[in-house]
Amino acid sequence: MTPTNNPFLADFTSMSSHGATAGGGVDRQAATVADGQTRNWFRGLVEGHGFTVRYDAVGNQYSMLELNPGAPWIAVGSHLDSQPLGGRFDGAYGVLAGAHAAQRVRQSLDGTNGTALFNIVVINWFNEEGCRFKPSMMGSSVYTGKLSAAQVLETADPAGTTVREALEAIGTIGDFELPVAAYVEIHIEQGRSLEDRGLSIGLVESTWGANKYEFTVHGDQAHTGATIIADRRDALLGASALVVAAREIALAHSTDEHMVITSCGEFTVFPNSPVVVASRVNLLVDVRSTDPDVLAAADADLHARIEGIEKMANVRIERGKEHVWGAKAYDKAGLELAARAAESLGLSHGVVRTLAGHDSTNMKDIVPTIMLFVPSVEGISHNERELTYDADMLKGVDLLTEVLARVVRGEFVSPSGIVEEPAGGSTLVS
Amino acid sequence: MTPTNNPFLADFTSMSSHGATAGGGVDRQAATVADGQTRNWFRGLVEGHGFTVRYDAVGNQYSMLELNPGAPWIAVGSHLDSQPLGGRFDGAYGVLAGAHAAQRVRQSLDGTNGTALFNIVVINWFNEEGCRFKPSMMGSSVYTGKLSAAQVLETADPAGTTVREALEAIGTIGDFELPVAAYVEIHIEQGRSLEDRGLSIGLVESTWGANKYEFTVHGDQAHTGATIIADRRDALLGASALVVAAREIALAHSTDEHMVITSCGEFTVFPNSPVVVASRVNLLVDVRSTDPDVLAAADADLHARIEGIEKMANVRIERGKEHVWGAKAYDKAGLELAARAAESLGLSHGVVRTLAGHDSTNMKDIVPTIMLFVPSVEGISHNERELTYDADMLKGVDLLTEVLARVVRGEFVSPSGIVEEPAGGSTLVS
Repeated sequence: MTPTNNPFLADFTSMSSHGATAGGGVDRQAATVADGQTRNWFRGLVEGHGFTVRYDAVGNQYSMLELNPGAPWIAVGSHLDSQPLGGRFDGAYGVLAGAHAAQRVRQSLDGTNGTALFNIVVINWFNEEGCRFKPSMMGSSVYTGKLSAAQVLETADPAGTTVREALEAIGTIGDFELPVAAYVEIHIEQGRSLEDRGLSIGLVESTWGANKYEFTVHGDQAHTGATIIADRRDALLGASALVVAAREIALAHSTDEHMVITSCGEFTVFPNSPVVVASRVNLLVDVRSTDPDVLAAADADLHARIEGIEKMANVRIERGKEHVWGAKAYDKAGLELAARAAESLGLSHGVVRTLAGHDSTNMKDIVPTIMLFVPSVEGISHNERELTYDADMLKGVDLLTEVLARVVRGEFVSPSGIVEEPAGGSTLVS
Repeated sequence: MTPTNNPFLADFTSMSSHGATAGGGVDRQAATVADGQTRNWFRGLVEGHGFTVRYDAVGNQYSMLELNPGAPWIAVGSHLDSQPLGGRFDGAYGVLAGAHAAQRVRQSLDGTNGTALFNIVVINWFNEEGCRFKPSMMGSSVYTGKLSAAQVLETADPAGTTVREALEAIGTIGDFELPVAAYVEIHIEQGRSLEDRGLSIGLVESTWGANKYEFTVHGDQAHTGATIIADRRDALLGASALVVAAREIALAHSTDEHMVITSCGEFTVFPNSPVVVASRVNLLVDVRSTDPDVLAAADADLHARIEGIEKMANVRIERGKEHVWGAKAYDKAGLELAARAAESLGLSHGVVRTLAGHDSTNMKDIVPTIMLFVPSVEGISHNERELTYDADMLKGVDLLTEVLARVVRGEFVSPSGIVEEPAGGSTLVS
């Protein structure tokens, strides 16, 4: 890294040293030592700038900057946890950008004696990535009432450590609760549409719909040499056929207008011995599309193929937990506010959809939400080579500052009514 | 287990308590604590009956029963290690049967004042299964000069423990060396041909040819949601397509006369996180057939498909280590001797081929070798439900005793010439 006088870039470099990997990325899986170090580093950073830091029951980290004591709160945030061998930008960029933007909003108010109608809280959501503890977006799911805190705290990683134990071990758990009136998030795109279009900023219009399934393929353990083909119940063959079928479905159902994306990100074979036909494979399959009808058709096709795969491999395929998100729009007024803010700064921008899930995917269901993207080089993500150029990061911080300033002045949501009646009527903190 | 007065069945029950699993099988992977316990139990058992026990440089366990001091040695053996969640019979039956048969041969000599031309050594070969340390048939491969002891001792398990460290930890390593004049092994069939034909004994005529390959599929880590299909280099998709192709090849190349069997027994995905497209998969694929031409055609077909799979999944498939055994015949005179022995005892018998590898697969390449099978219920093997009926085990011990008695009397190989000039001219111990 070359030395920099820019305070954001200097902090970004410091932050990226936590859990740094040899390949230029980070490994800060949720509630690991490296995640705890990053959370503590961030606490120290913002406390030095007058923020107050608290934790809720599932380890969401709230860094509060009071602009108008007693006023309601606007949240800005993302997540500091990462994938194993993940990139430095995914999530962490948004949390740090939020802290810098909040400070710059305060400085601008100090300079002009302007009045804020809201205070700002920067939220570092617990376990957005969902690699160590499933599912992903865990902290924001509890905040938005989609998961119970009790259930989350008992969730164990593959080694048997629960979320409660892991959070207690890194000391970032508490009982804090804070309702918010609106939510703003900035994130790297993790796709290549901004880069391809030559744009600096993406204004996120909607999420894609995603159906995620846990499958277990049940076969029977046998000898890879001595057991003839007719006698085999090969779980690995069945699971492999499911992976191949998922790709075929993505290709068959994608249209010019609506893409279908299918993936299998986790695939674990038992007993996984060189001379043993597998007795069981656990795998996750997800199907995503921008269009609910296209998604439904692709999903139906996937399920229709299961019986044939069961027959071909002589196995039984069991569907376990599922997580389903509909394709949903972000707040239209927020999209327009962000467009005006980008124009006022002279930043090129365009409307995008997010294929990935984000904490804002949850938050938009309970409060008015604005979601912003900055470009990712070649769309590479969940990879140590993930990259967003310094200039693009700084443009994003500028825009986030302008958006937050407008939201705090009351241009997005009104401070009256919000506190008494939270949007969506959900219980904000379980 | 019901109590038994039969000394073989009583010992078999005791033996099966070492590394016993809840499902009725055993887990005694090579040089684990459970394998060490079983080896020590066996040492105690045979020492109580006058055997002397020694270990060679790679942990092969030699239990020697002298019948004629100074005479050359006949080996009988198999292996006490198992698969994870393996059966009680695979290997262990043959070692215990060897010890019982050797004692019964001595007793019969004592009773009749007959003269033995050979002594008997029962060999428990180290790591036949190859699940913890690869490759399989490790101990007999070193004995027969196919692997070097130095290379084997440095081989590490997935946790980084070497064979040398593991053997030292269980205390079953030494520097003993012993050339032998012939080899006899009895094993469960692990297939269903004897059961289907209603036979008690299988006389193994030949091994199948087997080509075993280690493949690495190289992709690139990416986001399962945000990365569009065209940008993916999905290692899991490529590896899955290879597994499906292997099965298609088995079906396409099998003829009425010559079966082709393909398998993938180990398949490990990196980084194996729910929302990450896999960057790498390591997998083992093997192709087996009774006929060398059919095997060669199936193998060529497998390799011809690799380029198409690389293109489809946008990955690179690298072929690593390979282990190739030709289909090879066992000694014809040994087969005839075993047939005469079975007839003398009134045991129904037939000629079979072995699809699985055994230590005798190695031994037959350096000394005259006899391989015998007893039936497996439904052919189930490498499974806790593996079963051979007591009556079939006892018939096998009877036959092994009769075969060993004949071999010791000089009916198979001559004691002269053997010691000076070992069959095959190989160095027997590295």
